[in-house]
Amino acid sequence: MVRVGILGATGYTGLELVRLLSAHPQAKVKMIVSSTSAGEALTAQAPGLLGHCELALEAMDIAQIKARCDVVFTALPHGASGPAIRALHEAGVPLIDLSADLRYRDAEVYAAWYGVANAVADLLPSAVYGLPEVYREQIKDCDLIANPGCYTTCSILSLRPLLAAGLIEPSPIIIDAKSGVTGAGKKPSETTHFCETDGSFNAYGVTKHRHTSEIEQELSLAAGREILCSFTPHLLPVKRGILSTIYATPKAGAQEIGDCLCAAYANEPFVRVVETLPELKHVVGSNCLHIGFAYDARVGRLVLVSALDNLIKGASGQAIQNMNLRFDLPETAGLDMPAWTL
Amino acid sequence: MVRVGILGATGYTGLELVRLLSAHPQAKVKMIVSSTSAGEALTAQAPGLLGHCELALEAMDIAQIKARCDVVFTALPHGASGPAIRALHEAGVPLIDLSADLRYRDAEVYAAWYGVANAVADLLPSAVYGLPEVYREQIKDCDLIANPGCYTTCSILSLRPLLAAGLIEPSPIIIDAKSGVTGAGKKPSETTHFCETDGSFNAYGVTKHRHTSEIEQELSLAAGREILCSFTPHLLPVKRGILSTIYATPKAGAQEIGDCLCAAYANEPFVRVVETLPELKHVVGSNCLHIGFAYDARVGRLVLVSALDNLIKGASGQAIQNMNLRFDLPETAGLDMPAWTL
Amino acid sequence: MVRVGILGATGYTGLELVRLLSAHPQAKVKMIVSSTSAGEALTAQAPGLLGHCELALEAMDIAQIKARCDVVFTALPHGASGPAIRALHEAGVPLIDLSADLRYRDAEVYAAWYGVANAVADLLPSAVYGLPEVYREQIKDCDLIANPGCYTTCSILSLRPLLAAGLIEPSPIIIDAKSGVTGAGKKPSETTHFCETDGSFNAYGVTKHRHTSEIEQELSLAAGREILCSFTPHLLPVKRGILSTIYATPKAGAQEIGDCLCAAYANEPFVRVVETLPELKHVVGSNCLHIGFAYDARVGRLVLVSALDNLIKGASGQAIQNMNLRFDLPETAGLDMPAWTL
Amino acid sequence: MVRVGILGATGYTGLELVRLLSAHPQAKVKMIVSSTSAGEALTAQAPGLLGHCELALEAMDIAQIKARCDVVFTALPHGASGPAIRALHEAGVPLIDLSADLRYRDAEVYAAWYGVANAVADLLPSAVYGLPEVYREQIKDCDLIANPGCYTTCSILSLRPLLAAGLIEPSPIIIDAKSGVTGAGKKPSETTHFCETDGSFNAYGVTKHRHTSEIEQELSLAAGREILCSFTPHLLPVKRGILSTIYATPKAGAQEIGDCLCAAYANEPFVRVVETLPELKHVVGSNCLHIGFAYDARVGRLVLVSALDNLIKGASGQAIQNMNLRFDLPETAGLDMPAWTL
Repeated sequence: MVRVGILGATGYTGLELVRLLSAHPQAKVKMIVSSTSAGEALTAQAPGLLGHCELALEAMDIAQIKARCDVVFTALPHGASGPAIRALHEAGVPLIDLSADLRYRDAEVYAAWYGVANAVADLLPSAVYGLPEVYREQIKDCDLIANPGCYTTCSILSLRPLLAAGLIEPSPIIIDAKSGVTGAGKKPSETTHFCETDGSFNAYGVTKHRHTSEIEQELSLAAGREILCSFTPHLLPVKRGILSTIYATPKAGAQEIGDCLCAAYANEPFVRVVETLPELKHVVGSNCLHIGFAYDARVGRLVLVSALDNLIKGASGQAIQNMNLRFDLPETAGLDMPAWTL
Repeated sequence: MVRVGILGATGYTGLELVRLLSAHPQAKVKMIVSSTSAGEALTAQAPGLLGHCELALEAMDIAQIKARCDVVFTALPHGASGPAIRALHEAGVPLIDLSADLRYRDAEVYAAWYGVANAVADLLPSAVYGLPEVYREQIKDCDLIANPGCYTTCSILSLRPLLAAGLIEPSPIIIDAKSGVTGAGKKPSETTHFCETDGSFNAYGVTKHRHTSEIEQELSLAAGREILCSFTPHLLPVKRGILSTIYATPKAGAQEIGDCLCAAYANEPFVRVVETLPELKHVVGSNCLHIGFAYDARVGRLVLVSALDNLIKGASGQAIQNMNLRFDLPETAGLDMPAWTL
Repeated sequence: MVRVGILGATGYTGLELVRLLSAHPQAKVKMIVSSTSAGEALTAQAPGLLGHCELALEAMDIAQIKARCDVVFTALPHGASGPAIRALHEAGVPLIDLSADLRYRDAEVYAAWYGVANAVADLLPSAVYGLPEVYREQIKDCDLIANPGCYTTCSILSLRPLLAAGLIEPSPIIIDAKSGVTGAGKKPSETTHFCETDGSFNAYGVTKHRHTSEIEQELSLAAGREILCSFTPHLLPVKRGILSTIYATPKAGAQEIGDCLCAAYANEPFVRVVETLPELKHVVGSNCLHIGFAYDARVGRLVLVSALDNLIKGASGQAIQNMNLRFDLPETAGLDMPAWTL
Repeated sequence: MVRVGILGATGYTGLELVRLLSAHPQAKVKMIVSSTSAGEALTAQAPGLLGHCELALEAMDIAQIKARCDVVFTALPHGASGPAIRALHEAGVPLIDLSADLRYRDAEVYAAWYGVANAVADLLPSAVYGLPEVYREQIKDCDLIANPGCYTTCSILSLRPLLAAGLIEPSPIIIDAKSGVTGAGKKPSETTHFCETDGSFNAYGVTKHRHTSEIEQELSLAAGREILCSFTPHLLPVKRGILSTIYATPKAGAQEIGDCLCAAYANEPFVRVVETLPELKHVVGSNCLHIGFAYDARVGRLVLVSALDNLIKGASGQAIQNMNLRFDLPETAGLDMPAWTL
């Protein structure tokens, strides 16, 4: 049994980790940390976990974590995560970080898009970008795993094989992405107020969203040249799920493009290339990414549509997948559930 | 491994059976039957099940069912279920019926509330009402299990211990129940049209809903006298979940009422008496029923609030619980998941 | 043209006043006050009002109000409203208060249910309860109009004629009410977070909600004896609307009850006794209250169902109706719009 | 008073016409026609119209229409509309058609995208495309007004001034559009089932949606050369509203682009160029189109965001605007309401 600690257990990705791990056959949550609710039972905040996690929240205590946990998920905001990463790493505790703080190869890019210096810039060379479909082998040996962003997982996995194979032009690449409200986190705000969101819809962070830089980093590596994207996120009046509609100029026919995607993911447990275009309800509740496409010969354009659950494959599920790899467990352990469908 | 067949696999309770059974460690779906979609892959209708159920839908064939299944769930509309029940029973196949056709002790009551004669009236004496918290021992030995209705499970389990102990007056009993739209089934209609339901709310079947009679049957048995209820269902603009607000006149104090409920369910894996009043999000996704209450000494009234997921504890989950009992599996097998919370 | 001022113009009832008054033929908003956003254009917060209200928000200034406004709507939280009421009243400005601060005949009842002393207890004898269907004549001559609560308008108008005529028993009276989230106001909180509300449903304030006392005050006056109610509010995952399901014991037949309600509201422009039971979509967007009922002879119970838009007939629309009465305008001026239906 | 007839009055655009016209100061609905519900009161289907339209639905009868109506709105499905158009036109009744049957300059384009021959191909030269911002003068004199599609109004008005002024490249033009469910009409289907739509999101008609051809027709005319678009519609889990995110390559700077849009719509009552990007809640309930944009110098791209209410500016409101023009009424009569905001 892998003994798990979670920092930031009361946030949405933290709660989702607890929920998913309650069904994991080879891992068990042993310590849950919250800076604001120490002493309280987690089920007081989330009665849906009654009978599945009877732990009390605790204050941060590195010695305790080291004594009781084999691995820690840091589910803290970017910036806040840095100091926790350093403390855990210095204590020798392997960690999977769900913030952006370890995701960049170049601390300058982080600084430019996040507007603050990266507090763990010196650790970046030791970190791995925790996208199993790309960095599976490196993840197995790494103690600093940077769990990718939700939008970015969806975008990178859709485009990477085609750019790597040179089947689409490097520009323009336009990613029109739509996310559920859990992506905005648990903290109440005008943005997340039911009455401001229900029945409405909007774009946000247009031309400026931070995930742009993370997508560009990974796509550039795949293409072997600099890739710039238009990335436009939107807020959907749903709780969970991301659906991205991606536009590119094809350099090959529909058959070749389909073959490339199918080949790339033929052995992947959580990525499916589907014939009917993905919908949120096909993936929400599961750790799966669905990718489909339409080929518009009339106007010379490839339209990719991909979807995932932002809290699972886009965050906590992928983090557990990384844990499974790191601890040599079956990669699908605790993650092999179908979508909820309804 | 218990080999499972499902009649009506493309309906909402049928799909939910497939989804839940995909995670069951000791049962496996072997045959899925649909009168309208035979030949088609189930995943064509429900891509969220890709990788979890690769069976094709088949036409009804009793010989095939008998050869390949140890148990059948009949997830058909009332009336349509009767002939299937008879055929399976005559073939010696144990069955769990999700319709109303086997739920009544008295076929006349069924006829009065459903407006048609009960086609399996002769089988009623051999059937058991599949509410494990009440009829657990009988279920273990029965081949005709009548899975209770969604509203009724919620209402009966909330009131039964108090009526049996004489802690509330037998009248008035008022059950104001609110259900998600999956309770109306998969068939498109004006009632289930998104634009007619989203942002709206309404009562329906007021004074006439069929589940009234099922609730009264079981509560009368518990009380040892005839119990009549006001039962008012409402349609909530959500997919899943039932929350019932129940009003009764207490004959005892708050402490005694709480003790009675706690004692009744102390050893039940799926019924929790909670201190904070239940909300849909505390139970949706799980097989749990939550029961809470407020005691209004000022006006002399007990207000019970209970909640469950209508597709799980209110239908398919409870049906699997019955299967587990009937086949001597752990009662919680395949059902021990927390609520989704988000 | 009646010149209107609004205190608390950025809250939900304030915004709704601005929206509705933009279509009023004989009133015009001249001054909008906000303690937190003075100096800002209202349309910066509500771009949907572009072209309809180009005023900037101002700080509270009694002299300015007196100079520029014939009437003021105070749309402030209870408690905060008291001082504003006093200042306006002393300045001789007629006001319509949307808080609870002027609603009670007995300041002790307010203190008991709100947990604070009533800061304008001395003004209560001069105030009128602004329910036009009951106090129309008094409203015409009053400068301190206490606009009723949303739940209470719905409950009182449904029950009042029947209690006054002695057609229902004084007890039990059970009001099971369900409201949209705008009822919780604009301030972000866990309760109003989209992800905590969408797909969920819950009761709140059970046995303790403040509107209970307001309902009991008015029903007791109508019945000529003390009336106590069970009042249970619930939070619906919709933006607007209240639907109440009300249970009472009839002392007369269905015909007599229907006749009584129809007679009570035959000449009312905004109350309709309907044959098909009300649904939120029949009233949301309008200033109408719909009342329907089912008579359950089997169990001896009357089930009333009534519905209104909590921001219109339950707050801002009713406030404008009161203004129309006070200023001798046609009672329906600016309020005669159909429900949105979709 | 303009006397109005409506064919297809029970559909969503028909009901919206009735609702909006109930507040029109210079037009009155005199006849409502339904092929399926003749004889029934419209309020039986839409109780929200009680007190605002007490007409009974009638069967189609050209003589009656001619006698009682000055203008007819044909709110029928494409194909079904053709015969009605011909009959009304031959009878000399001016009409505003909400289907696609009169929208094309070239009947072959209609046939290619709709898969059926255009039954009124001979009338197309006499028809005007009823987009007031473009064809205002022609509309005033025409008896065959083709009301534009919902997606197309939003797309054409966003792009037309920029293409006409040569400020964007003619290719690529990518329109990623998202619509509420009323756009799919009133007929119940799996697509519009609450449980299939709520909490989900999907693209549909990718590369093949019929509105593509209508958009291309009008943009080509504006640009003076053939324009081809990628148009991808999506289904939002909301009732009303369309938001389009449009990507193009700029040939000028941000200032020049903003100036061009502002100049184009400076005198338009229903089109606003806004600084904060549009959201559905800014326009739903109004007849307004909001257009905003972000200029991404980093990647050389213009991102336009535009939003309207698909049932109002995208259908019935625009149809009334056309009627106002045709009958020399103030263009904003009956249409000058703010967005609902909540």
